[in-house]
Amino acid sequence: MFHIEYPRAIPARRPEEHQPAAPRFSLRWRKPLGMMVTEYFALQGEDLDWTAQKAFFDRVIAAQQADGADHWEIMRADGPGGTVEAIIVCYWLDATRHARWTRNSAFLHWLNDPARLSEPHGLWRECSKVPYDRHETIYSAPGYRIGLSRTSDAEIVPITMNGYFGAARDRMPISAIDALESPFDELPEPAAPPSRGARITVCAPHNAIVIRSGQFWEEAGAEQDADYQDNLRPKLMRGMDYLSGHKTQSGTLSLRNMTNLNPDGSLRRETSTYGHFLSLRHLEDWAKTHETHLDIYRHAIAMNRLYKERREVVTWHEVFALIGGQHGTYVNCHPETGLLPFASLVNGRA
Amino acid sequence: MFHIEYPRAIPARRPEEHQPAAPRFSLRWRKPLGMMVTEYFALQGEDLDWTAQKAFFDRVIAAQQADGADHWEIMRADGPGGTVEAIIVCYWLDATRHARWTRNSAFLHWLNDPARLSEPHGLWRECSKVPYDRHETIYSAPGYRIGLSRTSDAEIVPITMNGYFGAARDRMPISAIDALESPFDELPEPAAPPSRGARITVCAPHNAIVIRSGQFWEEAGAEQDADYQDNLRPKLMRGMDYLSGHKTQSGTLSLRNMTNLNPDGSLRRETSTYGHFLSLRHLEDWAKTHETHLDIYRHAIAMNRLYKERREVVTWHEVFALIGGQHGTYVNCHPETGLLPFASLVNGRA
Repeated sequence: MFHIEYPRAIPARRPEEHQPAAPRFSLRWRKPLGMMVTEYFALQGEDLDWTAQKAFFDRVIAAQQADGADHWEIMRADGPGGTVEAIIVCYWLDATRHARWTRNSAFLHWLNDPARLSEPHGLWRECSKVPYDRHETIYSAPGYRIGLSRTSDAEIVPITMNGYFGAARDRMPISAIDALESPFDELPEPAAPPSRGARITVCAPHNAIVIRSGQFWEEAGAEQDADYQDNLRPKLMRGMDYLSGHKTQSGTLSLRNMTNLNPDGSLRRETSTYGHFLSLRHLEDWAKTHETHLDIYRHAIAMNRLYKERREVVTWHEVFALIGGQHGTYVNCHPETGLLPFASLVNGRA
Repeated sequence: MFHIEYPRAIPARRPEEHQPAAPRFSLRWRKPLGMMVTEYFALQGEDLDWTAQKAFFDRVIAAQQADGADHWEIMRADGPGGTVEAIIVCYWLDATRHARWTRNSAFLHWLNDPARLSEPHGLWRECSKVPYDRHETIYSAPGYRIGLSRTSDAEIVPITMNGYFGAARDRMPISAIDALESPFDELPEPAAPPSRGARITVCAPHNAIVIRSGQFWEEAGAEQDADYQDNLRPKLMRGMDYLSGHKTQSGTLSLRNMTNLNPDGSLRRETSTYGHFLSLRHLEDWAKTHETHLDIYRHAIAMNRLYKERREVVTWHEVFALIGGQHGTYVNCHPETGLLPFASLVNGRA
């Protein structure tokens, strides 16, 4: 099983003799990986029916034939300013294949066409391209696959590097030799760039964190479904509302709450939050100290202890620490979309 | 000593039982390295006296105080269209420090100022930012330091992975698991974009190769100095002229022949070629098959065998395999500068 471990120059956060409160799992691959690439593509509009959403998804999926993604998923989210966003996430385990796809794909040629600037809808693309040592994953159960875990040759393996603050950092191999600090001390107030009718490329600050944090309760019975809907989900949403509402204080660059879709466009009982943070420390500070996260964390752990191997709600996340550089492209979008509110902070400066 | 080695998924090029014809050396560091960053900054003009060159160098060097480079060198090259280029190369061993420098440096604020577009001279910047596993180095002798080898905690160590075609690839750790192919099959004919009065950012294609290949004969006595001037140097220049004159066939994106400068602006007996190639294979094909390289290679090996440890000419190179993305920024430059002739090939497509 492939993995990278560096001799530690920076101590692990893991306390000596740590025993995790609940079993957790992480991804490994049965083949060596150099870099991994995740692209989110989205259609944004105030009036976006399923026909329009499906046409967009079909266009992206049809473009996956040559050098296409290893895995993709279709989702829906509330966008800024009362818009709806149809979002498709695509995963590549090979940056050369992804680069070939970028060069040749009919979808990107369409996206890059100036004609897109004068159409009624917005479009965006966010691309996270990282070496293996800048990723980490966690799953509450070994049996359900989603996101990165659906890529080829992936295995979900048990870990003990979980259940303490700083565990996500410890799981990311590069953290042994890199403190992953942000070059920016803090975020300014978000701005509203003139993004309608424009194509704006936004760089990510070096060491910015991309997280997709998910919940799956399709297979939950009545009791655990009710607990999820009545207890865990409201706590999650309270946490996400806090981060979205306090971007500057929390170092939140962008946050979207997505729901996975069935092939007919109906909502699955499967959600994930796709977030960008200025640094891992910002995310850790919220997780360690803010009541909204402690509330989520305590409830999830309590349910794990209560139900043990009968737990029917799966939670998981995947995290990437970005290398500074080009990240998002926004075409005719609402000015509060993704990283647009921080475009002038970062572009040319990280 | 820090180094990365992957379990090989791709066989090494090194023949079994290989014994190198001559001793060679490579760099290691006494501390772990995540990423390394090399920036070339240049002033370009038809009429560029030492006062103007020195003012430019002083501006870059004055900006190195906070989060500055580990090492820098000043050089001069013939630029396109009869221009002269004053070039300073800067090395960072810490991408976070480099990102902080990028954010805060007075030099980049000056470079980014629109006032630069209407001045008589051109300016450019090319930034190579790679994980450790995407670099390799070679030195013909252990005693002279230049380029990357002058960064902190670097050691020059003996190697045996040299003296066969494909050795440079084998020395680059990522090559054990990544074939480093280009997403582009070949280069088109170079174009001449309207770059005067403009600021143009150019992306590098994924897996493009950046090489700095150097020669040092400051300490050569009369005999070896004469051999260098009369024999090796003309062969080198013939090779470089071939590559510059056959960009499309050879996959050469850019090539500059630089001479290191003394603090008073006089030329040192120290030169290096700074080149960009579409892929490592392109550079290997030239090295393995083209008479201009075989000529250089045979003469260098013959002199090494003749003089052994009395060899007074040092040759070396450092190579980076780029991650596709932003690489060069050209401000009011001649249209044949650096990657500008291939801007439309790569931008938005790799």
